Amino acid sequence: MAVDALVARALEGHVPSGARLIRRLEDGDGEARARLSELRAHAGRAHLVGVTGPPGAGKSTLVDALVSGWRERGLRVGVVAVDPTSPFSRGALLGDRVRMQRHALDPDVFIRSMASRGRLGGLSRATADACLVLDAMGYDRIAIETVGVGQDEVEVIDLAHTTCVVCLPGSGDVVQSMKAGILEVGDCLVLNKADQPGADEASRALFEMLHLREDDEDGWELRLFETVASTGKGVSELLDAIEAHGRFLHETGGFARHAARRARSRVFDTLRERFDARVREAIASDPAWASLLERVERGACDPDDAAERILASVANLPEETEPEA
Amino acid sequence: MAVDALVARALEGHVPSGARLIRRLEDGDGEARARLSELRAHAGRAHLVGVTGPPGAGKSTLVDALVSGWRERGLRVGVVAVDPTSPFSRGALLGDRVRMQRHALDPDVFIRSMASRGRLGGLSRATADACLVLDAMGYDRIAIETVGVGQDEVEVIDLAHTTCVVCLPGSGDVVQSMKAGILEVGDCLVLNKADQPGADEASRALFEMLHLREDDEDGWELRLFETVASTGKGVSELLDAIEAHGRFLHETGGFARHAARRARSRVFDTLRERFDARVREAIASDPAWASLLERVERGACDPDDAAERILASVANLPEETEPEA
Repeated sequence: MAVDALVARALEGHVPSGARLIRRLEDGDGEARARLSELRAHAGRAHLVGVTGPPGAGKSTLVDALVSGWRERGLRVGVVAVDPTSPFSRGALLGDRVRMQRHALDPDVFIRSMASRGRLGGLSRATADACLVLDAMGYDRIAIETVGVGQDEVEVIDLAHTTCVVCLPGSGDVVQSMKAGILEVGDCLVLNKADQPGADEASRALFEMLHLREDDEDGWELRLFETVASTGKGVSELLDAIEAHGRFLHETGGFARHAARRARSRVFDTLRERFDARVREAIASDPAWASLLERVERGACDPDDAAERILASVANLPEETEPEA
Repeated sequence: MAVDALVARALEGHVPSGARLIRRLEDGDGEARARLSELRAHAGRAHLVGVTGPPGAGKSTLVDALVSGWRERGLRVGVVAVDPTSPFSRGALLGDRVRMQRHALDPDVFIRSMASRGRLGGLSRATADACLVLDAMGYDRIAIETVGVGQDEVEVIDLAHTTCVVCLPGSGDVVQSMKAGILEVGDCLVLNKADQPGADEASRALFEMLHLREDDEDGWELRLFETVASTGKGVSELLDAIEAHGRFLHETGGFARHAARRARSRVFDTLRERFDARVREAIASDPAWASLLERVERGACDPDDAAERILASVANLPEETEPEA
């Protein structure tokens, strides 16, 4: 289908067209990309909610419960799973996939998983494009599920307006999560699986942590929620807090600041992506580069020297000057 | 100190000089970088051992035990911690740091932690540089500790000749780790904390997984090791397997293939790093770019259009052509 028809049908809410558009953007299709500014004109209303935490914290089950809550409130919901351990994404075991995707039968829930490895142009860029399409299609809430470790994941979480950091009792996970600094990015702190052994200790440890953290500069108070996502226990309180955070952002100008920051990041994501593409094209188009890389592999040419030579041919960079010793 | 003196003293085994050299490479010091090919001429003998797994799996304690084992065998050891949850790295709580760094008093153990966020030029590049310095300084084994999720971490693990994937009982971590695909990168599979509740079930689940995995194309058999790193139980069997894998790689040409692959990756890491630096310089040197970015933040200019304009000024890229619909 031509891209203009895909965009038009996606904007009317046609799910398969939206899915195809996201795929074409992921694949770096130039024609689809040329429509991004058109999509941006229709976007900006969705509330993006990040759900992050260590593997095994029950993030997918929690997202599933949040989706149910939003649907009960009459909201249309997108889910973008960038967590390699999520049953929403391709790493899923079949049983989980069936269990978790009960919302897949609901036409007002759009579930999209992102492969997290080997993506050209960066995972955060591809995830941002997917969220943009869902936003332009009129989904009111977009849940972004990711693992709370690593630079890639931190960049993905930066897309969200509201971030829920999910911990679980036991295994030292609570303390480990704190060490990883993921509390710093949270707007809501969730102790999931709060019916499991060790939950009371974990809850106390997290509660003490809250007092160590400085208040958000805008005045939002980070609170601890205890949930059992598999039964729905505690989820509606969390949902209320997420909705309250959305209203808080609108009232304090946080939505606008977030949009400005995201637009700026996007410039740099695009720059890197375009440069990578140019390097790949240059290497593919000239056998001399393949021969140079082969000499690097044999140890006959220094890799950094080879990089400088390739760089000089694809970008008009000045010579690197050595600073004073 | 001048870089030539730093390099000379590091190559003689002077630890503070090595540490300073690593720091200058991390900071992108051009003079230090110009010595990388000299360092490469002295490197290539160290056996790099990656230790990866989810937060809370006890990776640091296991690394600590491996270091003890290597030292008992008379080997000199480097440790590079790129795990944001590791007590070796800056996220540490004080008690852990003191406990884990008992080897810091041993002149034949060099411990270096890498910050994992916001690193210019990429974490894998900086980690590779640190390992290169340690290798050139004559350390026989270099342990690289990282969290087994995320693109950054996968790139770091790709540095290692031998990778140990560490799991722990309970919390669904074993199954979650399998989903994350980190088994695929493993040469040795470790169930740590094997004295904890749930260890038998986890062991059975992992053992079944081993039969699902296809054999390594070179003929290395992935085996499961049960350890209690805090008491040292099972560690010497793991250490024997790591040493056997090193010999296996030497005998089958795996070391040479690994070096070739790493050299090639290095070319692309350097390319990206140099391009990022050039973009930062260009933006800092011309107020017109600051003004353009400000218009992007206000929504008055499309971010992708702005990226194309900046790109045109720092690299002689051709116009993007749109493919046929």
